[in-house]
Amino acid sequence: MSDLKSTFLRFYSVLKQELLEDPAFEWTPDSRQWVERLVEYNVPGGKLNRGLSVLGSYKLLKEEQELTEEENFLASALGWCIEWLQAYFLVLDDIMDSAHTRRDQPCWFRVPKVGLIAINDGILLGNHIFRILKKHFRGKAYYVDLVDLFNEVEFRTASGEMIDLITALEGEKDLSKYTSSLHRRIVQYKTAYYSFYLPVACALLMVGENLDNHIDVKNILVQMGIYFQVQDDYLDCFGDPETIGKIGTDIEDFKCSWLVVKALEQCNEEQKKVLYEHYGKADPACVAKVKVLYNELNLQGVFTEYENESYEKLTTSIEAHPSKSVQAVLKAFLAKIYKRQK
Amino acid sequence: MSDLKSTFLRFYSVLKQELLEDPAFEWTPDSRQWVERLVEYNVPGGKLNRGLSVLGSYKLLKEEQELTEEENFLASALGWCIEWLQAYFLVLDDIMDSAHTRRDQPCWFRVPKVGLIAINDGILLGNHIFRILKKHFRGKAYYVDLVDLFNEVEFRTASGEMIDLITALEGEKDLSKYTSSLHRRIVQYKTAYYSFYLPVACALLMVGENLDNHIDVKNILVQMGIYFQVQDDYLDCFGDPETIGKIGTDIEDFKCSWLVVKALEQCNEEQKKVLYEHYGKADPACVAKVKVLYNELNLQGVFTEYENESYEKLTTSIEAHPSKSVQAVLKAFLAKIYKRQK
Repeated sequence: MSDLKSTFLRFYSVLKQELLEDPAFEWTPDSRQWVERLVEYNVPGGKLNRGLSVLGSYKLLKEEQELTEEENFLASALGWCIEWLQAYFLVLDDIMDSAHTRRDQPCWFRVPKVGLIAINDGILLGNHIFRILKKHFRGKAYYVDLVDLFNEVEFRTASGEMIDLITALEGEKDLSKYTSSLHRRIVQYKTAYYSFYLPVACALLMVGENLDNHIDVKNILVQMGIYFQVQDDYLDCFGDPETIGKIGTDIEDFKCSWLVVKALEQCNEEQKKVLYEHYGKADPACVAKVKVLYNELNLQGVFTEYENESYEKLTTSIEAHPSKSVQAVLKAFLAKIYKRQK
Repeated sequence: MSDLKSTFLRFYSVLKQELLEDPAFEWTPDSRQWVERLVEYNVPGGKLNRGLSVLGSYKLLKEEQELTEEENFLASALGWCIEWLQAYFLVLDDIMDSAHTRRDQPCWFRVPKVGLIAINDGILLGNHIFRILKKHFRGKAYYVDLVDLFNEVEFRTASGEMIDLITALEGEKDLSKYTSSLHRRIVQYKTAYYSFYLPVACALLMVGENLDNHIDVKNILVQMGIYFQVQDDYLDCFGDPETIGKIGTDIEDFKCSWLVVKALEQCNEEQKKVLYEHYGKADPACVAKVKVLYNELNLQGVFTEYENESYEKLTTSIEAHPSKSVQAVLKAFLAKIYKRQK
C-alpha cells in the first residue's frame, strides 16, 4: 500500500470514534452501535480515490515539503469528509434506484432491520461532515469557506440528481429528451463538482487560497469530471466486465448515456427507429440490436476522438495556469484517468 | 391576520423566487417547475408557528422598537429557514412512516410521478436553507454561528429520529423499552431543539448575542419543547378530535407516548399484563382496553399535575433570567402552549 493511503487510512478510526462520542447527543449503547454499523458499512469500503486526492493534492501544493502530523490529519479529515459525502449520496441513491448491491454487498437499505430507516441514516452521514468540520476546523481562518464549499457542492449534486431523476420519470421513456446538453448538465452537477472540484478546493483552502481566485481550476476540474463520466458511460458498454468488475446495464436501464446521445446525433432516420424501438428494454435481443447500431456508427472511434480531444484541451488549459504546483495537482488528476480501462 | 403574520408571509415568495434563480445551478423550465412545485407543496402550508416565532422573538428582543424593512426581512428569512427545515424533515419522515396525508393533502411522495424522488427532494429542501443563509447573511458577523446552529440542530434532530426509529423496529414490539428516560430523549432531540430552541437562537444571533452565554435559555426552551410534546401525546388520546383536527392512533401504532410510559410506571402486575397484551394492536377492542386502563390509572390527573408542575418550574426559571426582554420572549412561548387544547 502507498504511504499516502496508509496515512489516510490511519485517521479513519479516529474520526469514527469521535463521532460516536459526539457530545451534541446523548448516546446509548443501542444508538452508538447503530451508528457504528452504519458508518462501517457505508464509508470506508470504496476505492477512496476522492478522499485520497485531498491529501495528495495538498502534498503537491506544499511542493513536497514534509507534512507535519497535524497537516496529514487535517488533509485526511477533509478527504474523509468527501468519503462521508459520497456514502451519504450512495445510501440514498440506492434506495431511489431500487439497487441491489453496492461494493459487492447488499445495499444498506436491504440489510435486515434497516429498510427505510436508511433515509434517516443517509441524513446522519451527511450531518457527520459538519460535525467533523466543526470539531477540527472551527478555529481556522478558512472554516467558513469550507462549510460554504461543502454546502454548495451538496446543493449542486442534489440538483444534478434531480435532473437525472425527472428525466428518467417512468412512463416518459422518450429518447428525444436525450441531448448532449442534458447529458453534460447531469454529469457536471451530479458527479463532477463533488468528485473532481471538491477535493482540490479543500486542498486549496488548506493552503490559504481564496477559491474566488481559482475559477479556472474549477472549470478545468469540472471538464475533467465530465470526461471521466463519459469514460464511465463508454466502459459500461465497451469495457471488459472482468476489469471493470460489473456488467453494464445502461442500455437496458434507458440511461441518458453519452453513447446513446452520440448515436442519436449521428444516426439516419432508419437507425433512429431502431434506437427508439430497442433502447431501454430488458430483452437481450434488443440490447444486442442497440450494440450493433453503436458499432455501425463507430462509436468506439467517436469515443477515441473525444478522449484525445479532451486530453489535449485539458493539457493546454492546465499548462496555461500560472502556478507550477497547481499544474502538478491537475496533471496528477488527469494522469489517473486518461485512457483508464476501469 | 396579525401584522406579524402578514409581514412574515410577504417574504415567502421573494425567497422562493431567489431559489428558483439560484446561479449555482443551470436551470431549465422542467427543473425550475419541479422545484417550484416541491416548495409550494411542502413549505408554506403549515401553521408556521416556528417561523413566525423568530420574527416575534426578534421584535421582543428589540423591545418593540419599530423594525426596519431589512430587519423584518432578515428575521422572516430565518423564520422561513426553519419552515424549510420542517418541510425537509416531514417529506422524509412521511416516507419512512408510510404516511398517507399531511396537512390535509397526500404526502409529497404519494403525489403521482414523485414517489421516491421525494428523497432527493427532501435533500434539496434542506440545501435551500444554506442557500438562503449564504445569500442574505454571508456578510454578517454572526453568519458562521448561524450556519453552525442550523447544522447542529439538524444533527440533533436526525439523531432523535434515529432513536425513535430503532426503538420502533418491527419485530421488536417490547414495552419494557419504553421508559421515561427514552421518551424524554426522543422528544428532546427529535422535536425540542428545532421547534423551540432554534427560533429563539436565531433571534438572539440577530441581536448580536453569543449563544454560549445563553445555555440557560437553551435549557428552558428544551424543557418547554418536552412539555409541548407531552401535551401532544396527551391530546392524541384525550383531546377532542374535532379540535385537534385528527384522530389519534398512538395506541394502535405502538408509539412511545408519555401516556404509556406513565402507565407502565404506575401499574400493578395485573394491569401490566393488560398493557402488554393490548398495546400496539389495530383492533378497536384492544385500544378500548388500553384507554380503560389509562382511566383506571387516572392519567388525566397525572397529566394535569405534570402540566401544573412544568408551568411552575418554567415560570420560576424564566423569572430568574437577568434580561427582561429575554424573559418576554420565553413567556410568550410558554403562554402560547400552556393548557393548549390543540
